[in-house]
Amino acid sequence: MMASPPEYLTRLLAAYAADAPPTRPHVTLTFAQSLDAKIAGPAGAQLPLSGPESMRMTHWLRTLHDAILVGIGTALNDDPQLNTRHLPPDAAPHRAPRPVVLDSSLRLSPTCKLLANHTKRAGRRPWVVAVAPSSASAPDAEWQTRFEALTAAGARILLLAPEGHDIPALLALLRAEGIRSLMVEGGARIIASFLAAAGCVDTLLVTTAPVFVGAAGVGYSADENGNANFRVVETRLVGRDSVVALVADAAPASK
Amino acid sequence: MMASPPEYLTRLLAAYAADAPPTRPHVTLTFAQSLDAKIAGPAGAQLPLSGPESMRMTHWLRTLHDAILVGIGTALNDDPQLNTRHLPPDAAPHRAPRPVVLDSSLRLSPTCKLLANHTKRAGRRPWVVAVAPSSASAPDAEWQTRFEALTAAGARILLLAPEGHDIPALLALLRAEGIRSLMVEGGARIIASFLAAAGCVDTLLVTTAPVFVGAAGVGYSADENGNANFRVVETRLVGRDSVVALVADAAPASK
Repeated sequence: MMASPPEYLTRLLAAYAADAPPTRPHVTLTFAQSLDAKIAGPAGAQLPLSGPESMRMTHWLRTLHDAILVGIGTALNDDPQLNTRHLPPDAAPHRAPRPVVLDSSLRLSPTCKLLANHTKRAGRRPWVVAVAPSSASAPDAEWQTRFEALTAAGARILLLAPEGHDIPALLALLRAEGIRSLMVEGGARIIASFLAAAGCVDTLLVTTAPVFVGAAGVGYSADENGNANFRVVETRLVGRDSVVALVADAAPASK
Repeated sequence: MMASPPEYLTRLLAAYAADAPPTRPHVTLTFAQSLDAKIAGPAGAQLPLSGPESMRMTHWLRTLHDAILVGIGTALNDDPQLNTRHLPPDAAPHRAPRPVVLDSSLRLSPTCKLLANHTKRAGRRPWVVAVAPSSASAPDAEWQTRFEALTAAGARILLLAPEGHDIPALLALLRAEGIRSLMVEGGARIIASFLAAAGCVDTLLVTTAPVFVGAAGVGYSADENGNANFRVVETRLVGRDSVVALVADAAPASK
């Protein structure tokens, strides 16, 4: 008997079995925070907020998505692997999600773990979503150098049009590339952008760890309108963390 | 069989059965917050954050303390009653806690519910802790008028010395008046002051409701040092809210 994702996660994402909308993937926004709603320490320092139980939950959740998205701030600060290494040893076989970094100006390091893991066949090829140089200003040599270094290191670079590179455009691009379900993991700017982008999040999963970070930590901005578009499905204890699951209201556009 | 306080609360406060320290009461700091760690809406507007289950928990907790303290901001904004009206009908008889308002400049309204309830014998006499006018500046007529209006309305006014009116001085005053256990309920300034005052809190109980308030809401400042002095005892679901209980480390002074 192999270990499978917890039933409450598969139940929460049951709607994802239906085909994704034509313009975007099914989207799960998830992050871990302290009691005082900080997601990182001073200057964005990575914090071990999640306990082992909720860390494992997050890795199970990753197996239920085609791709995982983080912002370039998180990629630079945390150098994440975005894989499923915290699953139990008897975990049932599963497809690793595609790592995606939103990195408008190609600041990702060619020596980051995502690229290193892929090079040593320990991770899928990461996608880097950047903003195309505008036609008015041809790409400068430095941009071209970064593009080539990342490509040589194994990244696949996807370009958004310089006009209108917002969350819906990002999602449309990923959907066109075959991503039907996307797990968005942070950091602060990504969280705020997705919470503010109406109708772009299906499921919101917030893990709160029982610690205080203090005023110097990095918070996120929860948009009031975003709140109105979600309803709570469940609050659950996962180890010493609490996990709140919210879903988008069925018809936010009609409100 | 009459209803009694939940076992996890009496267990959490078991140490309060021992006599309080000579210089302060046993102190429980407790507040309800949103997922994004806001304790009030824009401009301090009162929010119904707690669900019915955690509201009842808070009222049980009140029965386990000699007094409840709020700041003048909360007293003016919320006009609270600080009684135990949300207990079940079959609640065992208990002593209502003494309401205490920290109100340095006597801004409390003589028509507030605390005083009205006391007048109609539906609540204990509230204590108002103010700062005594400094000897350099004799009390002006306006202060004297407010003092007399509050006294006439039924308040008992306790005065802190103008020099050194900090949290330890407040606690020493209450202890000298016979308060052996104090529940501190907010608002933001009180919470920040108690979290920052080393060694003044024994128990910290944070209720998190599964809603977002948004950036315009009122947060509080969690001091990093304060965090280091607490350890988590328990995370618990109470209805859809999560409740985290922390206690002061046994010997914070030795760290």
